[in-house]
Amino acid sequence: MMREKVAKLIEQNAIFQAPMAGVTTPDLVSEVSNQGGIGNIGAGYLDVSTLETFIDDVKLLTDHIFGINLFVPEETSITKAQLEKAKQTLQENVPKYSHDLPDKLEVTEVFNQQIDLMIKKSVPIVSFTFGLPDKTVIERLKTADIFVIGTATTVEEAIEVEKSGCDAVVAQGSEAGGHRGTFIGDDQLIGLMSLIPQVVDSVDMPVIAAGGIMDSRGVKAAKCLGASSVQLGSAFLMTSESSTHELHKEALLQSVETDTVLTKAFSGKSARGIKNEFIHLYENNHDILAYPYQNSLTKNLRKLAAQNKDSEYMSLWAGQSVRLSKQQSVKELMDELKK
Amino acid sequence: MMREKVAKLIEQNAIFQAPMAGVTTPDLVSEVSNQGGIGNIGAGYLDVSTLETFIDDVKLLTDHIFGINLFVPEETSITKAQLEKAKQTLQENVPKYSHDLPDKLEVTEVFNQQIDLMIKKSVPIVSFTFGLPDKTVIERLKTADIFVIGTATTVEEAIEVEKSGCDAVVAQGSEAGGHRGTFIGDDQLIGLMSLIPQVVDSVDMPVIAAGGIMDSRGVKAAKCLGASSVQLGSAFLMTSESSTHELHKEALLQSVETDTVLTKAFSGKSARGIKNEFIHLYENNHDILAYPYQNSLTKNLRKLAAQNKDSEYMSLWAGQSVRLSKQQSVKELMDELKK
Repeated sequence: MMREKVAKLIEQNAIFQAPMAGVTTPDLVSEVSNQGGIGNIGAGYLDVSTLETFIDDVKLLTDHIFGINLFVPEETSITKAQLEKAKQTLQENVPKYSHDLPDKLEVTEVFNQQIDLMIKKSVPIVSFTFGLPDKTVIERLKTADIFVIGTATTVEEAIEVEKSGCDAVVAQGSEAGGHRGTFIGDDQLIGLMSLIPQVVDSVDMPVIAAGGIMDSRGVKAAKCLGASSVQLGSAFLMTSESSTHELHKEALLQSVETDTVLTKAFSGKSARGIKNEFIHLYENNHDILAYPYQNSLTKNLRKLAAQNKDSEYMSLWAGQSVRLSKQQSVKELMDELKK
Repeated sequence: MMREKVAKLIEQNAIFQAPMAGVTTPDLVSEVSNQGGIGNIGAGYLDVSTLETFIDDVKLLTDHIFGINLFVPEETSITKAQLEKAKQTLQENVPKYSHDLPDKLEVTEVFNQQIDLMIKKSVPIVSFTFGLPDKTVIERLKTADIFVIGTATTVEEAIEVEKSGCDAVVAQGSEAGGHRGTFIGDDQLIGLMSLIPQVVDSVDMPVIAAGGIMDSRGVKAAKCLGASSVQLGSAFLMTSESSTHELHKEALLQSVETDTVLTKAFSGKSARGIKNEFIHLYENNHDILAYPYQNSLTKNLRKLAAQNKDSEYMSLWAGQSVRLSKQQSVKELMDELKK
């Protein structure tokens, strides 16, 4: 039974590599799992054929447990006027990069196809970010012997994750880099030192601590606070097996903890990254479209900036422990974390 | 040598009771020290005669090490127009409570008198919040065999604390209740899980971790991250020896982690407390005077609200681990922390 195997791995404090959409590679995911951790594909809204190839590639490289992270779709809508305003802001301020936005984003359709794919491919773990899908979806996955994980940034959200039928919860502290998983109310940015014990006291399921953990000190601290396991993002961004852009790695190496800020500029949802021109542009500008529209609007711009080696317009996600960044292989990192 | 005694206590991981201005009593401070911790008087800008009596009262109750926390003065100035606007805001919105503001706040004069008093009374520890005094002040204290501690919310601030000649640094995470010690740039709210290891790696002095620690889990976690010792505020607010208002204790018992917010409404400086009407009033209102003027302006209002048992206008300071609050004696808390 796959689900029991996963539960046992978590019980043994297996390290989770955070599912970072855009930078996780089959090499990264499989190597983490081969080294005794749990590699995770950051699938986001990846179309199913690309995702299927990704999963096949990972399976070629490892026989061990790995996971897929999916974004729970939100049916937001924007007006034509909002769209035009947002486009205009980009055209005026970043004329060097073009941008494009499909008329309608079929996020729910993609999500449903992804769920079918999870079952077809018998993936060991599916985790969710940005809320929870219908209970029937979670039930279908569990019936297919898939271990299901939700993401929470507050105790209330963790309780909802448990109620939904998930098997475990990722508790994301305010220190975490990348997107905030907040799905109930405004983000109150609870620090991990506060979040873990309060979540552990409130739910009866394994708690996987995420945010600011970069080395064995953080792993041990999270365990002291009651977490079953930990999840690391920024630390894996720096590994040679990650497809992180060289300028992103350079920014991680050169930044300090006060350089990271929360911004909705790239996707319409709050995320923590190293501040640059693009974030600055939206600091006092409210023409940010609702997620996932802003994400689509800036997609081409981010791609072109990366091609142009222009880090001022790339999303340089990073957690608050960025000073602890160092270049290393997955094996070196995993060995350090076990110390 | 007193300074060596203090260093040894910190080496042995002695628990610091956070110096919370307004609620620390001789009973609280002395009992913490009698139980093997380090009690601290939150002196703020307390006038020297009141502070001297406080110190004498503590000395009557304990022979052990204790500390005094002082606010480093800032010479801010406000215009008459700003003052009138701020008064008007209060008059219009909270007509039931009067308020008053002295023409000139002699914070530097009070501070200098406090420093003289520290030396006269041979207090074992002096800690500073809101920055650092002149190096000559720190040198004077050290020459008088006083152990000196600074407060930092970032690595950069911790390095400044070390450079100033202080003997140890309190690293205050974003989880902490009450006033933020930030003194360089805007507060970036670094979570303790990120702050401790990065500060520990950057300075060569004992690091005392503060923010969100309420029980032995947090004590152990901070130690794993490299802290020499920990400082707890909210947990001591709940003890029977603290003069915390009964409504404040009730609020702590009934609140959850998402109920605390950062506000400048009470003092002009950012502080974390449980949200209420008064905080709400200033959410979208910018008529907050610079610290310490706002603090003086709201002083009488807070006092009257407390007398009237009106928690909507009291400063209900609390950290993000507020769900872990429980009524207990200092001895019970200290026993739990040693587990």
